[in-house]
Amino acid sequence: MKKIVLLSLLFVLAAVSAHAQQAIWGVMPLVSPEVHADNSVTFRFSAPQAQSVRITGDFLPARPIPTEYGTFDAPGEAELTRNSEGVWEFTTAPLAPELYSYSFIVDGLRMPDPCNVFQIRDTSTITNVFLIGGDYADYFKVNDVPHGTVSKVWYHSPVLGMDRRMTVYTPAGYENGDKSYPVFYLLHGMGGDENAWSELGRATQILDNMIARGEMEPMIVVMTNGNVDMQAAPGETSAGFVAPTTQLPSTMNGMFETHFPDVVNFVDSHYRTIPDKAHRAIGGLSMGGFHSLHISKQYPDMFDYVGLFSAAIMPREGATSPVYADFDAKLARQFAAQPALYWIAIGDKDFLYSANKDFRAMLDSHNYPYEYMESPDGHIWKNWRIYLTKFMPKLFKK
Amino acid sequence: MKKIVLLSLLFVLAAVSAHAQQAIWGVMPLVSPEVHADNSVTFRFSAPQAQSVRITGDFLPARPIPTEYGTFDAPGEAELTRNSEGVWEFTTAPLAPELYSYSFIVDGLRMPDPCNVFQIRDTSTITNVFLIGGDYADYFKVNDVPHGTVSKVWYHSPVLGMDRRMTVYTPAGYENGDKSYPVFYLLHGMGGDENAWSELGRATQILDNMIARGEMEPMIVVMTNGNVDMQAAPGETSAGFVAPTTQLPSTMNGMFETHFPDVVNFVDSHYRTIPDKAHRAIGGLSMGGFHSLHISKQYPDMFDYVGLFSAAIMPREGATSPVYADFDAKLARQFAAQPALYWIAIGDKDFLYSANKDFRAMLDSHNYPYEYMESPDGHIWKNWRIYLTKFMPKLFKK
Repeated sequence: MKKIVLLSLLFVLAAVSAHAQQAIWGVMPLVSPEVHADNSVTFRFSAPQAQSVRITGDFLPARPIPTEYGTFDAPGEAELTRNSEGVWEFTTAPLAPELYSYSFIVDGLRMPDPCNVFQIRDTSTITNVFLIGGDYADYFKVNDVPHGTVSKVWYHSPVLGMDRRMTVYTPAGYENGDKSYPVFYLLHGMGGDENAWSELGRATQILDNMIARGEMEPMIVVMTNGNVDMQAAPGETSAGFVAPTTQLPSTMNGMFETHFPDVVNFVDSHYRTIPDKAHRAIGGLSMGGFHSLHISKQYPDMFDYVGLFSAAIMPREGATSPVYADFDAKLARQFAAQPALYWIAIGDKDFLYSANKDFRAMLDSHNYPYEYMESPDGHIWKNWRIYLTKFMPKLFKK
Repeated sequence: MKKIVLLSLLFVLAAVSAHAQQAIWGVMPLVSPEVHADNSVTFRFSAPQAQSVRITGDFLPARPIPTEYGTFDAPGEAELTRNSEGVWEFTTAPLAPELYSYSFIVDGLRMPDPCNVFQIRDTSTITNVFLIGGDYADYFKVNDVPHGTVSKVWYHSPVLGMDRRMTVYTPAGYENGDKSYPVFYLLHGMGGDENAWSELGRATQILDNMIARGEMEPMIVVMTNGNVDMQAAPGETSAGFVAPTTQLPSTMNGMFETHFPDVVNFVDSHYRTIPDKAHRAIGGLSMGGFHSLHISKQYPDMFDYVGLFSAAIMPREGATSPVYADFDAKLARQFAAQPALYWIAIGDKDFLYSANKDFRAMLDSHNYPYEYMESPDGHIWKNWRIYLTKFMPKLFKK
């Protein structure tokens, strides 16, 4: 048989069918971002005809934006400089270890770095990402350690009358073992979904690395979708490719909390769990912290460990769900049962700082015990990743 | 306790921290793409200062590109028209049911549609996607049917001396049942990875829908990574965020085929499989078809069902792996064992068409039985999704 020159043909095909002609047709492709030995980073963008190329990213000095509710930090911006070939370039100062995000702004239009295929969606915004390793950011890397399994799993909720999707992490060894594990229910914020913690939160990598280092108990981690109007993340539902929103209308109306026993029942009936309070934790960020607070006090015999990461505290004005009724009495009942850990963390610039301060004062006034961590910065994923690494080692140690 | 106006604060925060000011600050956001009742589609893009906005997509008439190996089709292009507010617009003719992809080209720079967060990466190219339902494209939708579980699973390969990642689909009911299932090993092409079939191939949705309709047997589907230099998809390895390539140097060197029993052993030891030849299928596209051909003849007692989708056939010139030695004798041994199904499909414009024609002639000359399907078009995902829907109903029926 005639041997076809397969590789050459595939080579041509890739050049024709993809849009990556430059990289394939022998022109030296641009590298962007390029992380240097000192952890400074160079970004490059080829646009000979552009008048202006800027970069916006969370590693640049923040731009304070005044609003009627106070001043908020928006990601900083910087100008790229054009060289004689029409390649624009910008190099940062050395950066601290972290997962960073950025976009270009070309003649006023925001667009991704075409040389960097690594992107993460946060609600309706997609940004490029890169990782500066070292220090705690090594938790965010895929390292050569035993890896857990990450599954997209559908469960039925009788309370909501719908099938819904969750993300489940099972630790290395689960699939071919017979051990039973404790379960940590990890909840996202407003605008997020069941993918948020594993993507923006690097929860998979953090879990693999912390378990491998012996810094936390092996556990099952269940990441639900906190928007009861949705079955799953945008595009993963029977509604089709519907654009995500910040989900303002119908979150935090008590329904997520009310349906949560459906989640626990599903997990206990489909996984090798230790199905008791001492082996269940719940925690979440922002709206997920709000959910964790209200679920744990609504079902005081369900969770022994509670984590509030930059949590919203009180329901909205006029909330009528029975979940939010009798706040003080339910909290009294929850603390009378002596939870193994009630953990609160927030950034000193978080817009929910004062709400959390008020809540802690209320806990103090009743002598309800809790642990507290305060970090710099505001209502950002950097803090939530840190809180995850601080909270999980405390779980299931009693 | 003072109730904070939480939703208002989150509203401000989203506007400040995201880049989606337009959508949030009361300006009517653009809808793009907008699918009309007749399945024509309007694309919109706001760029008051742009001189030219074009769209490139696989629903536009293809542009033939002549090369030394023949003529290949590149995605077509069309001009958008600017209105008085600086919004550019283009409306297609009514489109046939299909999953389509596209990008904008703004003053010569390719960029995504900022109104459409749904994107898919194919090797190093990221494009927006949208779905026109109906006909066989309904298989690509998430419908209200029982959903299987999709897991990212790591296995150890003693042959390769490394941990590697695979995608595993387990059918609805697997997790809380005790039934054992047949297994279909489904392989990607050059430049792909263990995510390709579930993302570009819509394999998850196809499986959910075809199983729900009773059109195929419930089965476990294992989607491996065919590039033995990589542990996993780009960014999911200990190498970090390394840009994907077309992987020309070190695929199809015999190592993937040689390590494949490690995959089967892992699956049979970690899942409730029926661990015999009659309950194992292997199939793949392009390089994955090549792998399926050579693995199934190298291990003639392993797979009873073989699917070659637009497959490469013969090894490259000078390939020295023992896997590729004794082609005729190994094929004779495979067919002497009478496989339940040997299935070949290819598009009439595929650059591998003649190689497949030669291969079929050779099979004919030996009276080796096979089934054959020929479709329009070339070496594209549209065909591979169709082939998947045609191949799977034939599996495990003997």
